[in-house]
Amino acid sequence: MANALPASELSNSLTDQRDEFYRDIQSQNVEALWNARSAIVQTEPSVQSVPFIWKWREMRPRILRAGDLVTAQEAERRVLMLINPAFESRTLRTVGCIYAGIQMVLPGEVAGSHRHTPSAQRFVIEGEGAYTTVNGERTIMSKGDYVTTPKMAWHDHGSASDKPVMWLDGLDIPFVNILDANFFEDFGEESQPVTKRADDSQYRWSRNLRPTWEAVDGENTPLLNYRWTKSRDALHHLREDVGSPYDGILMEYTNPSSGGSTIPTMSAFLQLLRKGEHTKAHRHTSSTVYHVAEGAGYSIIGGQHFPWEEGDTFVVPSWVTHEHASEGGEAVLFSYSDRPVLQAFGLLREAAVAQQ
Amino acid sequence: MANALPASELSNSLTDQRDEFYRDIQSQNVEALWNARSAIVQTEPSVQSVPFIWKWREMRPRILRAGDLVTAQEAERRVLMLINPAFESRTLRTVGCIYAGIQMVLPGEVAGSHRHTPSAQRFVIEGEGAYTTVNGERTIMSKGDYVTTPKMAWHDHGSASDKPVMWLDGLDIPFVNILDANFFEDFGEESQPVTKRADDSQYRWSRNLRPTWEAVDGENTPLLNYRWTKSRDALHHLREDVGSPYDGILMEYTNPSSGGSTIPTMSAFLQLLRKGEHTKAHRHTSSTVYHVAEGAGYSIIGGQHFPWEEGDTFVVPSWVTHEHASEGGEAVLFSYSDRPVLQAFGLLREAAVAQQ
Amino acid sequence: MANALPASELSNSLTDQRDEFYRDIQSQNVEALWNARSAIVQTEPSVQSVPFIWKWREMRPRILRAGDLVTAQEAERRVLMLINPAFESRTLRTVGCIYAGIQMVLPGEVAGSHRHTPSAQRFVIEGEGAYTTVNGERTIMSKGDYVTTPKMAWHDHGSASDKPVMWLDGLDIPFVNILDANFFEDFGEESQPVTKRADDSQYRWSRNLRPTWEAVDGENTPLLNYRWTKSRDALHHLREDVGSPYDGILMEYTNPSSGGSTIPTMSAFLQLLRKGEHTKAHRHTSSTVYHVAEGAGYSIIGGQHFPWEEGDTFVVPSWVTHEHASEGGEAVLFSYSDRPVLQAFGLLREAAVAQQ
Amino acid sequence: MANALPASELSNSLTDQRDEFYRDIQSQNVEALWNARSAIVQTEPSVQSVPFIWKWREMRPRILRAGDLVTAQEAERRVLMLINPAFESRTLRTVGCIYAGIQMVLPGEVAGSHRHTPSAQRFVIEGEGAYTTVNGERTIMSKGDYVTTPKMAWHDHGSASDKPVMWLDGLDIPFVNILDANFFEDFGEESQPVTKRADDSQYRWSRNLRPTWEAVDGENTPLLNYRWTKSRDALHHLREDVGSPYDGILMEYTNPSSGGSTIPTMSAFLQLLRKGEHTKAHRHTSSTVYHVAEGAGYSIIGGQHFPWEEGDTFVVPSWVTHEHASEGGEAVLFSYSDRPVLQAFGLLREAAVAQQ
Repeated sequence: MANALPASELSNSLTDQRDEFYRDIQSQNVEALWNARSAIVQTEPSVQSVPFIWKWREMRPRILRAGDLVTAQEAERRVLMLINPAFESRTLRTVGCIYAGIQMVLPGEVAGSHRHTPSAQRFVIEGEGAYTTVNGERTIMSKGDYVTTPKMAWHDHGSASDKPVMWLDGLDIPFVNILDANFFEDFGEESQPVTKRADDSQYRWSRNLRPTWEAVDGENTPLLNYRWTKSRDALHHLREDVGSPYDGILMEYTNPSSGGSTIPTMSAFLQLLRKGEHTKAHRHTSSTVYHVAEGAGYSIIGGQHFPWEEGDTFVVPSWVTHEHASEGGEAVLFSYSDRPVLQAFGLLREAAVAQQ
Repeated sequence: MANALPASELSNSLTDQRDEFYRDIQSQNVEALWNARSAIVQTEPSVQSVPFIWKWREMRPRILRAGDLVTAQEAERRVLMLINPAFESRTLRTVGCIYAGIQMVLPGEVAGSHRHTPSAQRFVIEGEGAYTTVNGERTIMSKGDYVTTPKMAWHDHGSASDKPVMWLDGLDIPFVNILDANFFEDFGEESQPVTKRADDSQYRWSRNLRPTWEAVDGENTPLLNYRWTKSRDALHHLREDVGSPYDGILMEYTNPSSGGSTIPTMSAFLQLLRKGEHTKAHRHTSSTVYHVAEGAGYSIIGGQHFPWEEGDTFVVPSWVTHEHASEGGEAVLFSYSDRPVLQAFGLLREAAVAQQ
Repeated sequence: MANALPASELSNSLTDQRDEFYRDIQSQNVEALWNARSAIVQTEPSVQSVPFIWKWREMRPRILRAGDLVTAQEAERRVLMLINPAFESRTLRTVGCIYAGIQMVLPGEVAGSHRHTPSAQRFVIEGEGAYTTVNGERTIMSKGDYVTTPKMAWHDHGSASDKPVMWLDGLDIPFVNILDANFFEDFGEESQPVTKRADDSQYRWSRNLRPTWEAVDGENTPLLNYRWTKSRDALHHLREDVGSPYDGILMEYTNPSSGGSTIPTMSAFLQLLRKGEHTKAHRHTSSTVYHVAEGAGYSIIGGQHFPWEEGDTFVVPSWVTHEHASEGGEAVLFSYSDRPVLQAFGLLREAAVAQQ
Repeated sequence: MANALPASELSNSLTDQRDEFYRDIQSQNVEALWNARSAIVQTEPSVQSVPFIWKWREMRPRILRAGDLVTAQEAERRVLMLINPAFESRTLRTVGCIYAGIQMVLPGEVAGSHRHTPSAQRFVIEGEGAYTTVNGERTIMSKGDYVTTPKMAWHDHGSASDKPVMWLDGLDIPFVNILDANFFEDFGEESQPVTKRADDSQYRWSRNLRPTWEAVDGENTPLLNYRWTKSRDALHHLREDVGSPYDGILMEYTNPSSGGSTIPTMSAFLQLLRKGEHTKAHRHTSSTVYHVAEGAGYSIIGGQHFPWEEGDTFVVPSWVTHEHASEGGEAVLFSYSDRPVLQAFGLLREAAVAQQ
């Protein structure tokens, strides 16, 4: 580590003494703060994650190829993890402290039941007829559905489809790992028993009524599947609204028992960019994974131009300026971020930026 | 006020001295606590409100008759207030600190725009095609709809129907009056301008998504109309559920921005009593107005038998034991109570009671 | 109740029909809202409570006289209740929904142990050496001490003094009664056992440290006695502060486990009016009991001039304009109000008023 | 990364195909989840931080030596950072996501004014007469004082002592860095102006009274200095208490405006181990820095024996079993941890462990 003090002011002797001192304290697991200033004195965050896009036309053949090479049983979960170029793969960091992966279940396969302290959410990219079972409720997943799996909820996946089904997994696993709080349990048997009827939680929780005889903690959403048809319908009904100058028609999936985010550590969003819409540039201290649910367009992220189309996944790191534009019609973006973590500790900062 | 001390223990002289003392302190606006023990030492609440039922077959002709005798313009609101037999009418107390009234709007009438600190909610009893406008959003009301009006929100009613439309009004006006916090303002013109499209808040708030560009306080529900078709559907989908032994399938209308009650001072409920269901007896320190939305049955309230049918309104005072039973099929009860007030101060107490 | 519609517009016949109608509906426990408008349409709150002062020079001889006439055992609590002139004594209303009384314990007396859902607080007016025991902790009370008794906490009083000890009791009993939630239990024996050392809760809770092994609900203060010497010291250290233009140096007693009010339904305050200070006039929708802890001065309440001196107790009803002035030096006012109730439901409104 | 599938089951050809596939996807910033299982499937957290102790007898001469080699002005802050052996120094991680350093200010020195989004706290190890100024309030620091610096509060240090003053700095800087939310600003001039009298916040906030005219956010403690004399006094008054079997008399410094932790992301504690006390072993998912404020003893951490004495600093990583024992009399430990972060997201888990 370079000495932060200008060498010219120092006699050789003092320089030598200092170097000796630095060597000595290192042997004690001690470091001089004035030599580490760059890690401490940051006018603005020195963000490690970089903007990146994973194109669906590259990902799709590869997840299909993975289907040839590895069975679901072998892999436990057949997932291609999207790793930010700034990080090693073992960090599982797609952007900031959040993770994204592309999972595929083939006809007849089962991804066995387990549970863990990281929370999960899925957004279906392609296919119909796969299912997720969470705590005894099984939901059939369709393209565009947003499916939640709270921390420590038993869950497994399977497919009664005759085609591959693929979805985006979004987890807070890097955050939970960094906090040294990752616990995992195997269910023991392949699938948990289905003890509730299909879409049970939708009957209980999606009609602005609360079953009074059920205790919920308010922390995690009790709603398993936020259906695409219903969510997209909401977006389109607000098409004429002003919306946000920075985000267009940006709606957050909410926990009906609290009005807050679906998962304590992550907010998930669905966003309509109207025909010809080009949002104003801004930046904020939260890290976001975007997935193109419908349509095409481009984003300018940290000065770089990222064209995107349906199925693509891209990331906007914390405090990186970004703007989005639809092209050739309307576009719908699904996204999720670590915004609730920043907000919980008063660390969320947002700023408009002059257009790039 | 009778002297609480046994006369036999007292010399005439002491009795006289005490009586003189009590007269003296009364002139100072002072009272001996030991003479008022009954108001203070209460093993159980000495509830003033009594159980009562207002039969629709009695109410309906009377509200219609009111239509002949008084115009909406004259009356400002054509409402028959349901006054608990224990209270004078100026208290506006239907049960506990809550109010209920039956309002009717005739074809072409307008009930002009105003606002006030008491909060209001409506449940449509009969008719289609009347409307309520709240803060620029107009909703057409149908039988069974639950419509909210937060405190200090401009609101007016009108009707494009060709028949009378009647609904139950539920307000916290006695509570706000007792707290000396009732403010009222007239809008000035008959109707406020309609600035939003019909059912605007349903697009924004009823699909488990939140418009991120809108600030809400979380205190009052942003959702104007909880449609009967949707609410009833939710109830019926849970028909096979165990539900509550004391309340059957009792669902609470919720504020989507908080998960809590629609109105800070009042909770509203929709409740299915299944064919042949007879709930267990219990009591609690909250006061409830019930309205029969569908079907028939009876309730046993404080030992009294109250048969009811569609359109009837009845009340269960605090700490009075009650149980409900459907007759001849399923029944649906709408209700609202002051439960959030009791809960806010740790005063909510519930107890099962051996069947009466 | 008079008909609100101008008689001149009505034919005799219509008047007759209406009168008949009003008689008819009254028999059904129904009232026409348009005849009760004054109770409903209130530009400003129609407050029942009136400003009033109970002079200590009138109260002191009377509570002493009560000591001659009634034993603590006979009376259970020897208390003179201060009843607002606007209310009957059985309402227990001193102002708004709150109660104040003057209690005296004579040497050797015991006011036996009981508990109830209303919450209580005491402010010592005169004497040293009486005690209050709450849930096993006994505190010796000195002049100016503020002592709390949460709802459903066992409590009793006694005195090891050789002189009478008097204090102001402040309870939310009218509020709890109006909500029909007043429960009371006798301990069975005269005094509960003292299981904790003196001032135990002060060691645990008054030093900005929390005993981590103790569960508290955050609802009620765990601190039994807020000592006068410490509280007065805090006031005087802020003497040079700007403070509030309407209240001078107004400090709220706080619950160390939540930062909120000591009692869920009531806030208590200690307030320094500096030499020559005359506060600006304002009003707010909360009702306040004031007690003069030290010094002299006057208040202008609703246009009336109320001079006060040490020991006096006076009330300011909701929405009544008031201003305070010290005379002849500094003055200290103790007060408590129903502010947390108003705040909980968004009903707290405050307004500056041009000086009277 | 090794292939997780047993080689014996695979034909060479399949192995080759897989290897080729893994190379291919790596070029796309994609990784097979089934090859990274160890980072994902964790029965228990795979904690990186290791237990460690920094002995004061080693640290003291080194921070004094740093005083010879570097001026406060040159260094901006003369701090020796304690870096966990598991991490590189630029991570600033002492244990988990929290940081500890030893700071020294020499007579007459000033550590200039700045502010940042990380929150800070200090615990004075040695010396009297240094000061910290936060947002215009200057406090003179004595041995054992606990001094807080909320995020984005201007702060500087100096010394009017004639001897070196040393303290422990505790910051959440690694956590804020990981969240990419670290902002820093220089004040511009060396010291901010002192605009408040000494210990101003203690008059306002340490007496269980709240200045009603001051708005506070409840997020950060408004109290600048928690004095040793007062805190130690609290501990010793509870000496006879049962306390916690795992932690003895463990008290948390609290924010008087909320009852919660002094800093949103960190809890700080003072803990008495009584003469002969040996706590039971337990572990929890929060990471703790301990500092020996008084006395001597030892801790068993993850099976390792760590003797300690006054001035030593040691760490207990998440989920590592630990127990503490005093030796030769009473001991007092100061500590801080990331407990509020774990708690905020439902990730705090605690378990008793059979004694090691």
